[in-house]
Amino acid sequence: MNRSIIRHLLSKLLLIEASLLLAPLIVALLYQESATIIESYVFTIILLLLIGWTGVIFKPKDYHIYAKEGVLIVALCWILWSFFGALPFVFSGQIPNIIDAFFEVSSGFTTTGATILSDVGVLSHSLLFWRSFTHLIGGMGVLVFALAIIDNNKNSHLEVMRAEVPGPIFGKVVSKLKNTAQILYLLYLALFAIFIGIYCLAGLPLFDSIIIAMGTAGTGGFALYNDGIAHYQNPVVTYLVSFGVLIFGVNLNLYYYCLLRKFKLFLGDEELKTYLIIIASSALLIGLNVFHLYQNVADTLEISFFQVTNIITTTGFGFGDTTHWPLFSQIILLLLMCIGGSAGSTAGGFKVMRGLILARIAKNQILSTLSPNRVLTLHVNNSVIDKDTQHKILKYLVLYIMIIVILIFLISLDNEKFLTVVSAVISCFNNIGPMLGTSESFAIFSPISKLLLSLAMIAGRLEIYPIILLFLPKTWSKR
Amino acid sequence: MNRSIIRHLLSKLLLIEASLLLAPLIVALLYQESATIIESYVFTIILLLLIGWTGVIFKPKDYHIYAKEGVLIVALCWILWSFFGALPFVFSGQIPNIIDAFFEVSSGFTTTGATILSDVGVLSHSLLFWRSFTHLIGGMGVLVFALAIIDNNKNSHLEVMRAEVPGPIFGKVVSKLKNTAQILYLLYLALFAIFIGIYCLAGLPLFDSIIIAMGTAGTGGFALYNDGIAHYQNPVVTYLVSFGVLIFGVNLNLYYYCLLRKFKLFLGDEELKTYLIIIASSALLIGLNVFHLYQNVADTLEISFFQVTNIITTTGFGFGDTTHWPLFSQIILLLLMCIGGSAGSTAGGFKVMRGLILARIAKNQILSTLSPNRVLTLHVNNSVIDKDTQHKILKYLVLYIMIIVILIFLISLDNEKFLTVVSAVISCFNNIGPMLGTSESFAIFSPISKLLLSLAMIAGRLEIYPIILLFLPKTWSKR
Repeated sequence: MNRSIIRHLLSKLLLIEASLLLAPLIVALLYQESATIIESYVFTIILLLLIGWTGVIFKPKDYHIYAKEGVLIVALCWILWSFFGALPFVFSGQIPNIIDAFFEVSSGFTTTGATILSDVGVLSHSLLFWRSFTHLIGGMGVLVFALAIIDNNKNSHLEVMRAEVPGPIFGKVVSKLKNTAQILYLLYLALFAIFIGIYCLAGLPLFDSIIIAMGTAGTGGFALYNDGIAHYQNPVVTYLVSFGVLIFGVNLNLYYYCLLRKFKLFLGDEELKTYLIIIASSALLIGLNVFHLYQNVADTLEISFFQVTNIITTTGFGFGDTTHWPLFSQIILLLLMCIGGSAGSTAGGFKVMRGLILARIAKNQILSTLSPNRVLTLHVNNSVIDKDTQHKILKYLVLYIMIIVILIFLISLDNEKFLTVVSAVISCFNNIGPMLGTSESFAIFSPISKLLLSLAMIAGRLEIYPIILLFLPKTWSKR
Repeated sequence: MNRSIIRHLLSKLLLIEASLLLAPLIVALLYQESATIIESYVFTIILLLLIGWTGVIFKPKDYHIYAKEGVLIVALCWILWSFFGALPFVFSGQIPNIIDAFFEVSSGFTTTGATILSDVGVLSHSLLFWRSFTHLIGGMGVLVFALAIIDNNKNSHLEVMRAEVPGPIFGKVVSKLKNTAQILYLLYLALFAIFIGIYCLAGLPLFDSIIIAMGTAGTGGFALYNDGIAHYQNPVVTYLVSFGVLIFGVNLNLYYYCLLRKFKLFLGDEELKTYLIIIASSALLIGLNVFHLYQNVADTLEISFFQVTNIITTTGFGFGDTTHWPLFSQIILLLLMCIGGSAGSTAGGFKVMRGLILARIAKNQILSTLSPNRVLTLHVNNSVIDKDTQHKILKYLVLYIMIIVILIFLISLDNEKFLTVVSAVISCFNNIGPMLGTSESFAIFSPISKLLLSLAMIAGRLEIYPIILLFLPKTWSKR
């Protein structure tokens, strides 16, 4: 294993985080926040610079990155960024416990939006900004972001991106990786900027617009108030956020096709169709199921559409209380949590594309029982999904389920309600945010559970393998 | 499709059920039960004879059974036997509702042991006997049983057995199918007879011994009292039942190897080892987790070992109240429900063998990420599990999960507690019996849910495909 390149690149990445921390520092200065808060950023930045420069000074002997190194860099980068990103919360005393702060920042970078705060009001403007800023960075992948900026003229970044970009099929838009990253990042930032404008026009203050737009773009879900988007009491804002997250739950490549005027590719996309059908039918079913609670078509539609889009896109902005909803609606939300958004979007979860392929595998399997000698192929978007890809997805399902089962098993030791434990695990692992059946925050869990859930968030964001490999002794053996 | 052979064989099978109903009729006469009860058996038998003879008189044009016909015969037979087997309960007025009675008898034949009765005491001796007798018949598969008796000199029964015998790998012991069925059935009945003797020796009345032995042999779980085995207040009986179900949760082929003095094959069996390790570690973990509730090593060990063996073997005899157990222990029980017993045993569930292979697939998958170019093979019991078998198991997992998810989704409309709904579905589909988190019977569910759960029991017993095919319009199309 090439340890020196791992050390070298991680150090570079820490330097990038130091520069990112300048943003909340500026916000803190603008809002004239207390010296303690400003010092907490400065200390963290100095610490990152010291560690980063020490690692960068010593050049690696060998610049080659193989699969293993790539995966390890990704896993370690997410953990380190979350750890150092948590320090301002600890130093400023706003989240004094390091485990709590680590949970909060992992939740930010992984665009989960789960919080350990029972009252968001304790955070200052700059820390609220930093928390949501991590959504924006994490949304497209911290490393894809980093790759779009740094360039050490090596073409060995493929493995790094493969590990970080979500979805079963990778890389289509343009041939050169760095260009793909840059184009998608620009598209992403442009959409983000548009949403800041839209939210402002809808009447939100600029600061709120930026925060909510970062949560929307990253499909994160951190907001500014305990009651989330409901705070604004404005149906226009509710629908804008609902459509906003819906837009960011779509494969970004499809928007690029639109820019290239390849509208057929956009409109014919089977994943997009499936995604929209799931959203429409779920919102309808929930609407019918909860109508008796609201006695009003407008209110029912507003909350059910908001919840469905926010859950399937794994955003999870808060809006209204769903703890008193009938079990049927809660089960729908739980299923949407598992499905997640489209591959190649900022959303997490199992991904619509994988679900679509699984459903077709199941269909073929049933048909083959009926006529065992027929050869059945599997198509998505007019291209054949070969056996190898099918098996990869099936194996991914096995790991996906095993991890959920193991986490439920471990976290059940905290002895909370069954629905709470199951939804906490599914929510964190799929990067959603809220739990079902309780209006408490994640503060109810023990420190060990919080650490496990933090790792679950990162494992879910990185689609499992990097975090498993990180903890495999074999990965670190010399031979 | 050869409809005439389906009609012909199903008619024969109904005649067999008519003769089986003589057993509870004799019990009713012995216990001098009321005329209503005796008449209810007589009516049912006459009905079965009429329908059966009408179907048998017309000879089929063609005796060929292909995969499709085989699977349909299996599915229809289980549904018809459950339906007609339910009639004595309805006619006698002891379970007046046909849906309830159908649930109860499906639960019997599938060796689930789930009941809609809140008080078992309402049933007469003969109906208690019939209910448990269905466990004994269902245990080894009603059709394997039928094949062991009827023989129309056709070698086309393979497809029928394949559909009914549980587990991913089929048929080892002897080459001729009919012989295999007969040998295993003899072994099964011999073990059953031994357990009647053992229970008598432990002090149970003869009637109780027969009933409990039928529940043990079929890993069913219907008992004679509302408090199940706890009624006898005898730790010896508790342990005998625990070890009894443990023995019937093992692949019966392994006992045949013992008779052939091939002890190495028995002791070296990896599925058996895994099964025993899961039982021991689960009992230990639950014991540690619930110790504070019993304050006593003997009581803790008795109940935790009983529950673990009864749940993993999908028997589910009642013993003590587990609703107040901590969530951790309930989650362990829920996982054991899904794992189930060994392939080739009377137990249901996903099967230890499949779980073992899945775990190894996951392990290989992780190792292959570490060194993508290495070729990794998968072994169980020193033989290679080829890619095809692996993929079959992976696809089975997909269907297994989809059905559980769909059932939870539909049954959640009844708006019971989440743990109740999840455990009801998992319990029925894996043929266990009891629910978790509630001490109510299945009577709490709506008629539609009861019907769905009945079909789930049969689908689970037949390992999914037959019941899906039955409801596929394509199966019944002419072409």
